[in-house]
Amino acid sequence: MRFMTFDKNNEQGKYIYQQIYKGIKERILTGKLQSDEKLPSKRKLADQFKVSVNSVTNAYEQLLAEGYIYSMERKGYYVENITQFITQDEQRINNLPNDLKEEVIDKEGWLSLSHMTSDISLFPFKQWLKYQEKAIKNHASKLTEIEHPQGPYIVRQTISRLIALSRGIICEPEQIVIGAGTQSLIRNLMGMQEDGTIVALENPGYSRFHTMLEKMDFDVRPIPLDEDGINITRIESSGARFVFVTPSHQFPTGKIMPISRRIELLNWSVKLENRYIIEDDYDSEFKYETDNIPSLQSLDRNQRVIYTGTFSKTMLPGLRISYMVLPPKILRDYQNYYADLIQDSNSLGLYTLHYFIENGDYSRYVKKMNHHYEMKRKLLIKHLHLKFGDTLDIKDIPAGLHFLARFQTTRSYKQIDERATQERLEIYSIKRFSLETSYKVENSIDLIIGFANIDKENISEAVDRLYEVIG
Amino acid sequence: MRFMTFDKNNEQGKYIYQQIYKGIKERILTGKLQSDEKLPSKRKLADQFKVSVNSVTNAYEQLLAEGYIYSMERKGYYVENITQFITQDEQRINNLPNDLKEEVIDKEGWLSLSHMTSDISLFPFKQWLKYQEKAIKNHASKLTEIEHPQGPYIVRQTISRLIALSRGIICEPEQIVIGAGTQSLIRNLMGMQEDGTIVALENPGYSRFHTMLEKMDFDVRPIPLDEDGINITRIESSGARFVFVTPSHQFPTGKIMPISRRIELLNWSVKLENRYIIEDDYDSEFKYETDNIPSLQSLDRNQRVIYTGTFSKTMLPGLRISYMVLPPKILRDYQNYYADLIQDSNSLGLYTLHYFIENGDYSRYVKKMNHHYEMKRKLLIKHLHLKFGDTLDIKDIPAGLHFLARFQTTRSYKQIDERATQERLEIYSIKRFSLETSYKVENSIDLIIGFANIDKENISEAVDRLYEVIG
Repeated sequence: MRFMTFDKNNEQGKYIYQQIYKGIKERILTGKLQSDEKLPSKRKLADQFKVSVNSVTNAYEQLLAEGYIYSMERKGYYVENITQFITQDEQRINNLPNDLKEEVIDKEGWLSLSHMTSDISLFPFKQWLKYQEKAIKNHASKLTEIEHPQGPYIVRQTISRLIALSRGIICEPEQIVIGAGTQSLIRNLMGMQEDGTIVALENPGYSRFHTMLEKMDFDVRPIPLDEDGINITRIESSGARFVFVTPSHQFPTGKIMPISRRIELLNWSVKLENRYIIEDDYDSEFKYETDNIPSLQSLDRNQRVIYTGTFSKTMLPGLRISYMVLPPKILRDYQNYYADLIQDSNSLGLYTLHYFIENGDYSRYVKKMNHHYEMKRKLLIKHLHLKFGDTLDIKDIPAGLHFLARFQTTRSYKQIDERATQERLEIYSIKRFSLETSYKVENSIDLIIGFANIDKENISEAVDRLYEVIG
Repeated sequence: MRFMTFDKNNEQGKYIYQQIYKGIKERILTGKLQSDEKLPSKRKLADQFKVSVNSVTNAYEQLLAEGYIYSMERKGYYVENITQFITQDEQRINNLPNDLKEEVIDKEGWLSLSHMTSDISLFPFKQWLKYQEKAIKNHASKLTEIEHPQGPYIVRQTISRLIALSRGIICEPEQIVIGAGTQSLIRNLMGMQEDGTIVALENPGYSRFHTMLEKMDFDVRPIPLDEDGINITRIESSGARFVFVTPSHQFPTGKIMPISRRIELLNWSVKLENRYIIEDDYDSEFKYETDNIPSLQSLDRNQRVIYTGTFSKTMLPGLRISYMVLPPKILRDYQNYYADLIQDSNSLGLYTLHYFIENGDYSRYVKKMNHHYEMKRKLLIKHLHLKFGDTLDIKDIPAGLHFLARFQTTRSYKQIDERATQERLEIYSIKRFSLETSYKVENSIDLIIGFANIDKENISEAVDRLYEVIG
């Protein structure tokens, strides 16, 4: 190939055949080798370059596989007719615009009163890893396959037993749909409903659902809370077909929905066909001073409650394991609509969870964390009262992993956010959960205070920082 | 409480306070205790039942927390005004209808020629578990939090380096979006496009995308393949804005898109604003006899290719780790649209993967599996030719984890499916991937033959069973 120079030692680290391949490819793409031009025979090129025939063969085979050349039996190799690129910028434009560059924020030295975390310090990783090995051993062949769209049957069986005991949920494993988070499950559930369907949410409430449902083109109606929770008259007048509630521990206010309001809500659901309540039981496992509050689903006699639970709060958010319990009618629709959906939760994690629950480790861990969180909660509230005195009003409902607190201050929510960053304190206000309405009581702010991820030793310091933020 | 009898030893396994709680609760719900009726004082009830005051206190506190009773300071406890249930069926109807009951299919003794699996037998679980422990140790605090919506930055960094080397992908970590599967990622990507957008798919092609995109209300156009892959003229005339392709190894036909067609496709994308190509590079890591085929994205000079890759094929489907690479313009839209989206891939798995790649174990494993799969592929093809002789035509493109084979037979696809079940052989035909058209060449059937999950020792037996199915 007279037009091509070649130096074996030129390009370090590349095999000889790759250098030949690259050289010929470039000549074809730049038009130096023309369409239907015959390439030298392998032997001839090998002699010319002083390399083995094997190297030339490999180069030709690669060019053939990628469609740069074609072969004709007994005749040899020819250049393909290659379309030219429309743009011929030598320099590919791929500088990432500045606005898309990520700042990696160093959280060293920060303290967190976030409600979105869990405490990992007591997590029994040793046990978890032991069950993981068991899962690998016993379910290896299942790991090579795409799982049942609702998750492995035995894991659903284990979850159904667990929530029957702990939450009074009445269901068959068939009714359980496992997924990589409640958000993902709710998106599937709602994805099969018609655009424009009216959906009622608690206000203040879980803003991620609000955003998601609006993007899905639902007619989303934030419904105000009264003393007992979501206002039934307002639900009724909204014309909603679906209502999202957090009866065990209202998010973010922390209120527990009393039995009377629960019955009213259930009664609302049976008054018309196709009305459903979605019970988001996100942190009901944590209840202090009294026993857990039974789920709304356990009171439902008409299969109008869709129950969702998660292992993000009791265990780790990073696990991505949640589940929902579908009434038979919805389940049938779901299976028809999502026959092609792939289970998105890690199946090794699911089988591991199965053994973790089955052997009692899960219940023991939740029990331990109940005590642990209760202790931290008490300590934090004590410190807050000591520091803030009368300027503080805590909605002291002993449940979950956060509480709502009102502080007297003239500062705005924006100022609070800025000062929290200065003080290296992660804290969230009610502002982000006030759906479609600006929520601000004069001379006060409401904060969602989480206590899951603050160490006992740091509580006093966190309260001091909060004082700087608010004061 | 004269109306309530109570026997400490009656209900085994329940605490005394729970028995009292339950008794009062039932009396309230059935109307035996009336609204605003005063309950006996704790001491009085304790005396009457011969239990400790503590037990009665606990029962009252639980009833209070759930809203069955209310307290008035210095006066005592009163029954709340409880709404009655609309339906009062004693027996809750929750028999799962028969059509929803799951049959657990026993796959014992089955052999699989499915294209959907991977081989787990050589997976280095020991190494994986070692890196998992390292991930727990080094990233414990990250596991307690909700991850970055696109996945941890360091994991994206590692993936971007990996695919730069292995697939020629040019991108920054910022452009990578990790997710629990390609399906989930594509749903997000397309979820922000307008309903009715025209989307072109290869036909035959990946039916799960077809189903999903139709459900998302896109105008989906299956485009036929010619010798070189998807037909550009037909894409152009469809008016599509998005085209889904599998250039490295067309699914399911196995064809490799030659360079000329690649350039034509890229040229198509730049002719109008907002045209994009989605390159699904699902099993490109496996290429036999020649080197890997460079990705389409590596040829793209105009940022019109959205690249997707997965660890489901190279490692395990159950891991649920895939990623896509977004051009800056799409990335900006994505970040705005999905600011509230929660990363759905297990973060412990992601950090583990990070070390697995960084330490070279991933590349070593892929290389090993390349040899392993090549060997199984050759053996399977040899056995097929021996058994079926001239009645078989294999599209012998040495890549990926499956190939397409045409068998002469008068049987229908339905008959083939039925007989495969009888013979306990998992095998899929092209029928399910023929989008919107019935695909059937007279007196022949096309099967997608996967070789990932069949043991070397079972290949001969699987071919014998296939002979029974087809013959």
